[in-house]
Formats: sequence, structure tokens, C-alpha cells
Amino acid sequence: MLKLHEKSGDDTVALMADIGRRARAAARPLAIATTAAKNAALLAMADALLAREQDILDANAIDVSNGEESGLSASFMDRLKLNPARIRAMADGIREIAALRDPVGDVIAEWDRPNGLHIERVRTPLGVVGVIYESRPNVTADAGALCLKAGNPVILRGGSDSLNSSAAIHARLVDGLKAAGLPEDAIQLVPTTDRAAVGEMLKGLGGTLDVIIPRGGKSLVGRVQNEARVPVFAHLEGICHLYIDRSADLDMALKIAVNAKMRRTGVCGAAETLLVDRAVVSTHLVPILDALRAAGCEIHADAEVLKVFFDAKPATDADWVTEYLDAIIAVKLVDGIGGAIEHIETFSSHHTEAIIAEDAKAVERFFKEIDSAILLHNASTQFADGGEFGMGAEIGIATGKMHARGPVGVEQLTSFKYRVRGSGQVRP
Amino acid sequence: MLKLHEKSGDDTVALMADIGRRARAAARPLAIATTAAKNAALLAMADALLAREQDILDANAIDVSNGEESGLSASFMDRLKLNPARIRAMADGIREIAALRDPVGDVIAEWDRPNGLHIERVRTPLGVVGVIYESRPNVTADAGALCLKAGNPVILRGGSDSLNSSAAIHARLVDGLKAAGLPEDAIQLVPTTDRAAVGEMLKGLGGTLDVIIPRGGKSLVGRVQNEARVPVFAHLEGICHLYIDRSADLDMALKIAVNAKMRRTGVCGAAETLLVDRAVVSTHLVPILDALRAAGCEIHADAEVLKVFFDAKPATDADWVTEYLDAIIAVKLVDGIGGAIEHIETFSSHHTEAIIAEDAKAVERFFKEIDSAILLHNASTQFADGGEFGMGAEIGIATGKMHARGPVGVEQLTSFKYRVRGSGQVRP
Repeated sequence: MLKLHEKSGDDTVALMADIGRRARAAARPLAIATTAAKNAALLAMADALLAREQDILDANAIDVSNGEESGLSASFMDRLKLNPARIRAMADGIREIAALRDPVGDVIAEWDRPNGLHIERVRTPLGVVGVIYESRPNVTADAGALCLKAGNPVILRGGSDSLNSSAAIHARLVDGLKAAGLPEDAIQLVPTTDRAAVGEMLKGLGGTLDVIIPRGGKSLVGRVQNEARVPVFAHLEGICHLYIDRSADLDMALKIAVNAKMRRTGVCGAAETLLVDRAVVSTHLVPILDALRAAGCEIHADAEVLKVFFDAKPATDADWVTEYLDAIIAVKLVDGIGGAIEHIETFSSHHTEAIIAEDAKAVERFFKEIDSAILLHNASTQFADGGEFGMGAEIGIATGKMHARGPVGVEQLTSFKYRVRGSGQVRP
Repeated sequence: MLKLHEKSGDDTVALMADIGRRARAAARPLAIATTAAKNAALLAMADALLAREQDILDANAIDVSNGEESGLSASFMDRLKLNPARIRAMADGIREIAALRDPVGDVIAEWDRPNGLHIERVRTPLGVVGVIYESRPNVTADAGALCLKAGNPVILRGGSDSLNSSAAIHARLVDGLKAAGLPEDAIQLVPTTDRAAVGEMLKGLGGTLDVIIPRGGKSLVGRVQNEARVPVFAHLEGICHLYIDRSADLDMALKIAVNAKMRRTGVCGAAETLLVDRAVVSTHLVPILDALRAAGCEIHADAEVLKVFFDAKPATDADWVTEYLDAIIAVKLVDGIGGAIEHIETFSSHHTEAIIAEDAKAVERFFKEIDSAILLHNASTQFADGGEFGMGAEIGIATGKMHARGPVGVEQLTSFKYRVRGSGQVRP
């Protein structure tokens, strides 16, 4: 169905270099594009996705049929498969991005100097973004739209098994760009399944890529983090902790523990380890574990927990560093807030942690001494999400400390520059 | 005088790994240190530098004598040499950093969600900083103090030719840390001249270094930018442009052109290229060039400029991409604001550019369409400086678009995390 680039090696190097050059050339027109033009493009993309729904479903059917032949797993096939509802969700997502405030040009700080200079810090696009993702075709639409809103050209490298679907979606994004008079190269899809293309992106396409965002499982993210020669916005895993302090309200602790672990077990903000203050072992521990088990959760307990909650699996050292992404939780007793902080700072992936407490001092220590992207007090870890933060669409959650940390939304995809207004000032 | 680490190869790898581990271990106590403790350390450092002035001068005398024997250049020797005034300037610089506002813990944004969650974005230390610099011993004090203020452990790798001086200064910084009860490993100096130490830092010391800041000439910065596997805050060069629009006030243009080029020719914010609107060639060009020449500046002129200003050197293609850092300026006629933007976007190093104009529309196009870290209107490019921006001390100017852009002061050496306060919220 598609004319894909079938060759490899040197051809892919040349192909990727050309894609990089085109992206770089699109950066300037995109950076100065009006909000109206960007939004018109986004709305036209959403319309085009719906208008050409059947083409997308046809392309997806090829990927699905190939995937079935290659014996891909059921969960993989579920992510790959499109239907009219999923296409509508993509279109709706793009329309929500169109409705977001355009960050480019926002004055984020301004001040006057004694010599009369007026200084403004103004948001600008970040640059050329590379997105490397697995076989979720909808990332093509989400990532393309979010990068466009922030004025960034994007190079999309989707999973090989979804390339027909991604290409069909990408073609509709290009329809939108054309309709609004924006450069078609603003959103490019890498048209080859040759894995050398990923290697070229990780090298930065000769200084073209400003940031790479991997979307997918731990092996993909790990490879990108280890090998990329350009900055990466990502989290490798979310080993999120829920700590029940001696001052916790038991009802609240119960409700939040079940939600943090069980609402959705496969998201990065799901709690993986439950830490309970030794001071409330007799009152809080068993009811919370009972509630978790009643919700279908398997308990991996340390030796002390096992003494009072017999029906659990003994936890091993591996449990404290495992992101289950499943209905399993590791449980440990700690010596109050100090013990909780010590455990979390030792084992956390610095994504998201929550404390349930009524004692303000314990909360302040938790907030001050733990260095994770997101810390919550008396709320579920599952709020770790750009939408829940009110940022609108997000492209993921970052645990690095450079530039973007926590949810990466449209503002996090911008940089800034200084505008200085004078009236003839020279420096003495 | 000093017990330096004299071995190389594997020994240096082990030495650097140990330095990295120590820095990482210092990160947490430093992140939660109070502002009072950090400031007490800084003031004690300043006192110690003055109290042990003679030791520092003695150590410096060894470096100076070695440098004379090795035939180092006069400008190199000037940077290397210390005297009581320079030591006092270091101490004063540290006291100014103590007087700066502590950014750690600042709430930089906060908002409420409809479900009652209150979200705060709070500044945190950035992490472990590596500073690689040439033989300016004062960078030891400046960089050490600035990183401490932001709560970041720092690993300092100074030039081999100034190692005795840097070590004598570093010992006084450690005095200050001890006096305030802060970890001594918060500020470490690499105690070897083995160049393999730099290679280890560029590799990131096993994930320990969060950012590297090179301070020095183009070859050092270029090597760090090319080889570092961790983020870099730097500018390779400052090819700064001054554009004289048709709407410019001639007196202002004259005064700013001379200041931008000649106030100090060796700084990164010095103008290197003068662009003049073809529309005012008959009124503005010759007076400006006369003023520059009267101030001692050599003119490299394009063919059109040579037609009206005979006594200049013909510019070659190389002139548009040369950072002279000297009393030389390249001059070119352009077709108004559009021509100026085109030239700057093609040849600039995206550091600092200025426009002299009375026409607000030209200024807005300049501000919007040029993507450099600092843009100025009717002011000298020599204001490109953290102190002039009111940021206090700076560790340099960055032209990258990630995290820090423009002057890198104490705020740019921080990251942030989210604190979310709830009252029992769970995610539906």
C-alpha cells in the first residue's frame, strides 16, 4: 500500500540526513507562524483524520494482519488496532491541543534595570524534536500535534509493526499543514523500518535534533537514554511510593492506597511500594492490606509485615526496585517519616511519591527532602499526569532534572530568549 | 608544595569515579542545607581567602615560575598571575554570592485544580555540576561559590598550569564548608594534571554529572560540546551583530556602535559584524565607520561598503563567521530589516544581537524572527552579562536552548519539582 524506503545502511544515513535538513529548514517558518495558522492546521488535521477514516482503517488492517502472522502478543495487538472510536479520540485530542494557549511569545518574566533597560524573558520554540515510539499509531497524531502547537518541527519514528497505520495518519497531518500554509516538513514520519534510522536519530542527525522523546517500554527508553547524544525527555520507570505516616487518617489512607495501586496498574504513576509507619502497624497496616487484597492486589511483604499479615508473599530485595505495572504491591514497615525518606531516596526512580499524613511537619520533611519530580500529600499517585495537572495534553513524564521535569506538555516543549529594550544605553 | 595525584590511566579512572561518588553523596545534605548554613560557608570562605592570602600567593608563584619556564604566552600569564587585589576581588565576589537570594525552595508557579488539589512548582538544586576551565585560578572560587549557593555539589577541573593556585584557593573553600558544617565534598578539585580526568568527566562519571560547564577558549568549549555525554551550558563563540536600521537615530547609532565593538573587544558580547541598512548608506555609514576607526577599530568591508568607504580591508566570506575578539569589525550593507534578519539567521552564533531603530515595526520583526539568546533594541551588545541583567554573578552565557539560555546565574543552576497538596483526592 505504501511506498516505503526499503533499503538500508548508507541509504538510511542519507535519508535521515535529508529528513534532518528538511526539519531544520521548517524550524524558522514554524517559529514565526501565527497562532491562528497553527490552530487552523490542527483543526484541519482533525477533520482530515475523520474524513479519511476508512483509509486509516484499511492501512491499519494491513498492520494488524501482518502482526497476527508474526504472532505479536495480545497486548501488543490491542495497542496496534484502530477502530472508528480510536480515530475519533485522536481527532478530539488534536482539537484539544488547538484549544490550548499558544505558549510561543509569552512573556514569562520581565524587569527593569537601574539604567532604564527593560528586560523580558519570552518563550520560543525549543527546536527540532525527535519522537521514537513503539506500535501505538495514535502517538503519531498526539506527538505531531503537540510539537506543532509549540512551534517545533518533529521527526516521528514509529514502530515498524505500525508503519502503515502511522503513515496513513501522518498523511492527514500533512493535509492539515498544507491547508494552513505551513511547511509540510514540520511533521515528518521516518518512512523506513530500517533500525539504522533510530541510530541516526540517537546521534542527533548532525546537530539537527534538539531533544529526543522516547515513548514506549523500558527497553526502548533505556536504549535511548544510554545511547542518545542529545537531551532526552523521559522516565525509565515509575517506582512510585505511598507512605502512610503515623498521623494518617485511616479511611483516607485506605481509599488512596487502593486508588494509587489499583485504579490502573499499568500507568507510570501507579504505586509500586507501600511504606507504613511502624508506629501504626497495629491500627493501619492490616486494614489497608485487606482493602488492597479485596481489590485484587497481590502483596509482597517484608519480614515484619509478614508477622502480622500472614497471607502474603515474602518480599525479596528485587521487590524494592521493581516496577510491577500489575496488581502487585511491595509492603514494608519504616521508622516514621525519616525511615520513609531514607527508603524512597534509596530505591525510588524519582517519578512520583505520596504521603498520607495529618502532621504538617512530616509533610514538610517529605516535600523538602525527597527529590522526585512529583510529590503529593493526601492524594493518589495516579494524579501524576499532565492532564490532571491542568497542562492539557502531555507527551510523557520526565524524571530528568534538565529543562522539563514531571509532565511534558506544550510549555515544556518551549525554550526562551531575552528581549532588552533600551533608549541608547551603552555599557560604561 | 602539593601532594598531587601523579599517576595516570586506570588510576585516574578510579580517582574520578571516587570523586563522582563523593559528589553524589554530598548532594542530599547540600540540597536540604539551610540558606543560613550556605551563606555562613560562603562568608567563611571569603574570610579564609583573605586570611591565607600569602599561602595563595606562594602557590601561585610556583605556577607562575613554571609557566615562565614553559614559555606560556603573555596573555596566559596575565590570567594566571594573582596579587592581593585579585584575591580581594575573589573574596568580594563570594560575598556578593552570599548576598544573593537563595533560589532553592522558591515557589515559581502555583495553581488550584477543580478537584481541590493545590499544585506548586518549587525550585530544587540541579544536581552535580562539573566545571572544566583553563588557567584562571579565580574560576575556582567563583564557580565553587555559585554552585554551593544553588545547592549543587561541584567538581572543578582547572587548567594544569594553575593547579597549585587552584588547590590553594580550593583549600580555603573547604575551610568555609567545614566552618558551616557542610560536607567537604560539596566542592571538589580534581587533584591531577592527567588529561584522562577530563575524558572521564565528559563521560559523566557513571551517571553522576548532571551538567558540565566549560569556561575557556573556543577549543576547550568545542571539545566539551562535541564529546560530552551529559548536558553542557556554554557558548562556543559570540558572533554578535549590530544592525543599523533606516529609522536609526544617527547619534545613538554612533555611540552604540563604538561601545558595542570597542568598550572591551575580548568579551563574548562584543559586536563582530555591523549591518547597515542600504537605505541610509549616504547618511549613516561613513560617520559610523569614521567613529569606529577613530576609536582604533580596523574595518573589513564588503564590496558595496568599499565603494563609499575606501580606506578599509575587503571582507572575505570568513569575516562573517569570525569572532575577532579584537579591534576589528566586519561591515556589510543589507536590504532593511529583512536583509538584516536573513544575514543574522545565516551567520550568527545565536548569542547576542542588537538593532538601532526608531521604527517599532522593524524592532518587533527583529525581536520575533531572530532566534538568539539575547536581543537588544537601542542598547549596546556589551550588556550581554548576568550582572548587567541583574542576576548577580554568572558562571557564563549559554547559547543552547535546553534549560539555561543566556546568562547562567544561580537560578539557572536549579531544577524544580512539583508539590501537590490534597485532602484525600483519588483519581476517578
